[in-house]
Amino acid sequence: MFLHPIEWPDDKKCAATITFDIDADSLIRDACRDDAELRLQPISMGRYGPTVAVPRILETYRRLDLTQTFFMPGWVMENYPDTVEAILKDGHEIGHHSWRHEDPMGHSDEQEAELFERALEVHVRMTGRKPRGYRAPVYSITPAMVDRLIEHEFLYDSSMMADDLPYRLKTTKGEILEMPPHWGTDDWPPFAHFAEINYLMQVRGPSAGIGPFFEEFDVMYEFGGFWMPVLHPFLTGRLARWHEMEKKLEGILAKGGVWFAPLEKIANHVQSNGGTLREEAIG
Amino acid sequence: MFLHPIEWPDDKKCAATITFDIDADSLIRDACRDDAELRLQPISMGRYGPTVAVPRILETYRRLDLTQTFFMPGWVMENYPDTVEAILKDGHEIGHHSWRHEDPMGHSDEQEAELFERALEVHVRMTGRKPRGYRAPVYSITPAMVDRLIEHEFLYDSSMMADDLPYRLKTTKGEILEMPPHWGTDDWPPFAHFAEINYLMQVRGPSAGIGPFFEEFDVMYEFGGFWMPVLHPFLTGRLARWHEMEKKLEGILAKGGVWFAPLEKIANHVQSNGGTLREEAIG
Amino acid sequence: MFLHPIEWPDDKKCAATITFDIDADSLIRDACRDDAELRLQPISMGRYGPTVAVPRILETYRRLDLTQTFFMPGWVMENYPDTVEAILKDGHEIGHHSWRHEDPMGHSDEQEAELFERALEVHVRMTGRKPRGYRAPVYSITPAMVDRLIEHEFLYDSSMMADDLPYRLKTTKGEILEMPPHWGTDDWPPFAHFAEINYLMQVRGPSAGIGPFFEEFDVMYEFGGFWMPVLHPFLTGRLARWHEMEKKLEGILAKGGVWFAPLEKIANHVQSNGGTLREEAIG
Amino acid sequence: MFLHPIEWPDDKKCAATITFDIDADSLIRDACRDDAELRLQPISMGRYGPTVAVPRILETYRRLDLTQTFFMPGWVMENYPDTVEAILKDGHEIGHHSWRHEDPMGHSDEQEAELFERALEVHVRMTGRKPRGYRAPVYSITPAMVDRLIEHEFLYDSSMMADDLPYRLKTTKGEILEMPPHWGTDDWPPFAHFAEINYLMQVRGPSAGIGPFFEEFDVMYEFGGFWMPVLHPFLTGRLARWHEMEKKLEGILAKGGVWFAPLEKIANHVQSNGGTLREEAIG
Repeated sequence: MFLHPIEWPDDKKCAATITFDIDADSLIRDACRDDAELRLQPISMGRYGPTVAVPRILETYRRLDLTQTFFMPGWVMENYPDTVEAILKDGHEIGHHSWRHEDPMGHSDEQEAELFERALEVHVRMTGRKPRGYRAPVYSITPAMVDRLIEHEFLYDSSMMADDLPYRLKTTKGEILEMPPHWGTDDWPPFAHFAEINYLMQVRGPSAGIGPFFEEFDVMYEFGGFWMPVLHPFLTGRLARWHEMEKKLEGILAKGGVWFAPLEKIANHVQSNGGTLREEAIG
Repeated sequence: MFLHPIEWPDDKKCAATITFDIDADSLIRDACRDDAELRLQPISMGRYGPTVAVPRILETYRRLDLTQTFFMPGWVMENYPDTVEAILKDGHEIGHHSWRHEDPMGHSDEQEAELFERALEVHVRMTGRKPRGYRAPVYSITPAMVDRLIEHEFLYDSSMMADDLPYRLKTTKGEILEMPPHWGTDDWPPFAHFAEINYLMQVRGPSAGIGPFFEEFDVMYEFGGFWMPVLHPFLTGRLARWHEMEKKLEGILAKGGVWFAPLEKIANHVQSNGGTLREEAIG
Repeated sequence: MFLHPIEWPDDKKCAATITFDIDADSLIRDACRDDAELRLQPISMGRYGPTVAVPRILETYRRLDLTQTFFMPGWVMENYPDTVEAILKDGHEIGHHSWRHEDPMGHSDEQEAELFERALEVHVRMTGRKPRGYRAPVYSITPAMVDRLIEHEFLYDSSMMADDLPYRLKTTKGEILEMPPHWGTDDWPPFAHFAEINYLMQVRGPSAGIGPFFEEFDVMYEFGGFWMPVLHPFLTGRLARWHEMEKKLEGILAKGGVWFAPLEKIANHVQSNGGTLREEAIG
Repeated sequence: MFLHPIEWPDDKKCAATITFDIDADSLIRDACRDDAELRLQPISMGRYGPTVAVPRILETYRRLDLTQTFFMPGWVMENYPDTVEAILKDGHEIGHHSWRHEDPMGHSDEQEAELFERALEVHVRMTGRKPRGYRAPVYSITPAMVDRLIEHEFLYDSSMMADDLPYRLKTTKGEILEMPPHWGTDDWPPFAHFAEINYLMQVRGPSAGIGPFFEEFDVMYEFGGFWMPVLHPFLTGRLARWHEMEKKLEGILAKGGVWFAPLEKIANHVQSNGGTLREEAIG
């Protein structure tokens, strides 16, 4: 079913990474810049992520022996240093996820560059290194940003949907891997109910909301693909939803044959073994 | 699964309160101030709440021997005095729910204070005491309102979502408990279809709409948590939906181990036994 | 479960009417007055109603020996005279449903009166009598319209949602019955996908869309209530959906104990036997 | 259940065509004309269609021995010549689907004519003939376009919803067949999540999204009708969804009695055998 299949290491059938974007209250801070500090409800909804959900998720990962990937805006890292520390302590990856979740369509590329650098500086300061991966807020990535990632020697982006499997992006500046997300494995549609950002989905129950992600998994497993849910701690980290995720993850792990790894590690494998990767020209 | 677990009295496994916000026709009165009196359909939809649903709900509570919590805007209390009387007669709690469901983002804090006091006066006059709890309209609560609640010696607020379990809010004025709601146990997404307030959900059937609330319950029960649906009589009090709720509630009660109590009583327990509660600084 | 229960004739357990609002292409004609004639797609979607769905529905009613109620805007009656004739020939009721589905919030009451009279004249001319019942477009009914219905000696309105069972509306002009609809038995949420009127629901499959109406029925049947789906031929009259309806209706009829009748007949029964009806003051 | 039933060839019980509209990135190019080239995410989401999904779909069709119909905007054909070639090589039909998916309500008929001709020229140049069928972008077809199709001797349009079965459109210029689509078998409601065009559906899981199309099939099969899903490679061609489609298609084919053919072939049959077709006057 794939035009450019990828072989996974150790005879694994498929690759899998659970990515969590820890947006916390950056969403409301950015959406309502004039009066966000008055809006305690969306702030509290976002704060659930780093303060309640991330510790819960990390505990599960320790128990199941998983190392995974988190994306964090620089502003969130600065405001939740304990979250950064806890993630790093367990050996997980932290990717670049903008400064404060600003949609790049709302400002010039000069501002975008400034915000990118500001966040990058936070990563270096707090994690001791440049991040290897990037995910754009609301997946909104521009050609200038792809060039910027290449200039900063990022290994991968994870914002575009042109394929099921990782592929190469080529620009005049060089190339970078794309680790593609997909709306069918994003938790925003089943769970987000956020009037202030005009995004009001009809919140699904835990099993009805989580189930489709694993329907997607089953097919990726069957065909040797790449499964990468894009989740948010304040949504999927809620108790009943995460409990559902846990049960499903345990089921997957019991089957065997799944290569669970942080995105960086999967990208490294793809990079060094990927002679037949799809190539996509940008710009 | 909890960072700050709470022990419930009498070896109960978990705590539970069904909260009903009796908004009645305050929603349309506030949304369409110029011509609400012409809009008989949304008025009638709202009036179903106090006139049909609340008597039905109270009957169920009597049969199942439950004492629970209702939140009412002052304007609704004044316009539905029989509803207030019936609720009080059965020993339920009535919490403060604004004057007429005005979103505080639509006016100054001075006006907010005035509206708050006006509703408070109605509570004192009609219930014989100050309410102990507050829930903001559309959960929209400001730092100034938290201070106001503290100044008026409220025991708890129930508008924010930063945790699964009750937690402490601290401001420069003092502190108050937060009894946190959550979109996964709110009946607005499954049932509300209200063009005049731009909220058009794809109305679910009774079982598909109610079911997810009890998926949430099952997990709270398993982990010793706190389950608090936020319901509205004009939505969940409709015959078929309430019948579904009743059946599910009977199932829960038959299991045993659930501490059903009004929110005030649960907050009191948490207050006096809550040495390890989470603390959240506001402002 | 009812404060004002109603006894149904012949020891029937509950009353039931399927009401169809035949809006046809009046919706797009009214919504896009400047260029509706260019918009063949919404016109064709609406035309499915009278030309394909109504004959199918009438055939089912003949086979199942049901006499039911249709509401039609005057403009639709004039433009689909064969539909009017076919409905009358089988003995069904046709109720008043505005002139061309104009929301009364969009014009003055003088215009509303003019449009009402224009449609009334069509009813008298084409059906040989004044209609006995009225349903407002998008359920949007004003106090002035209730008075107008009373002045014209209508037996009932069917636009408001303050109760499960028929109830009395009282104004300074007199009184009229309300035969209440409800969003849980309306086919607009499960099936309507209509960009031109900004109403884009996530179209459900036939069984998932129709099923909830019958969940509602089961409870009305159990408690001796009143079941009145509000359907539209261009939505629920589509082949697979109507086939699902038919199967479900056959199931209901096989149970026995359901009084299926046109709304007018049920209102007449309620009127003459309804000593304990709820009364609701308007204006 | 049909007023104008159609007999299918070779004693087949029903007719079926899967139509795919290959819009690719034309949607974002048209919606955001000023800055589409900056919006790599919607571009990538669209590019998945011709580059990943179409090869997958063609492979399935080869394996199941199906010849079907694709609709393509001229701009997409020019930008994805390999896609055109691959489709033609396997003998499938390509229908006219506008120049770049422009809604005709956004420009004059003169512009519409110019865009139509421009796309037509691409079809002739790339496929060696004029297309026989047309589907309007967002089904938005005008009377002037129907006349235009007749003038260009198109065999059929596939944009209107006035019937379940193919029917005749008559204008002052002549006539043409309508092969009617329907929202219940369109993959936009279950799967499209596209903020830039204000279309945010709550993405369904593969089985819940695909299932309803086959509920519709079952009824069409039972009554001898016409089943024509309107799908999009970037939505239904995603791996897990297409895998679900494949399984369902295999089930249908195993039953026997279904006449799967390109739309052109079905229209030809209808044209030459359709003495009792419904006729619909336009303009």
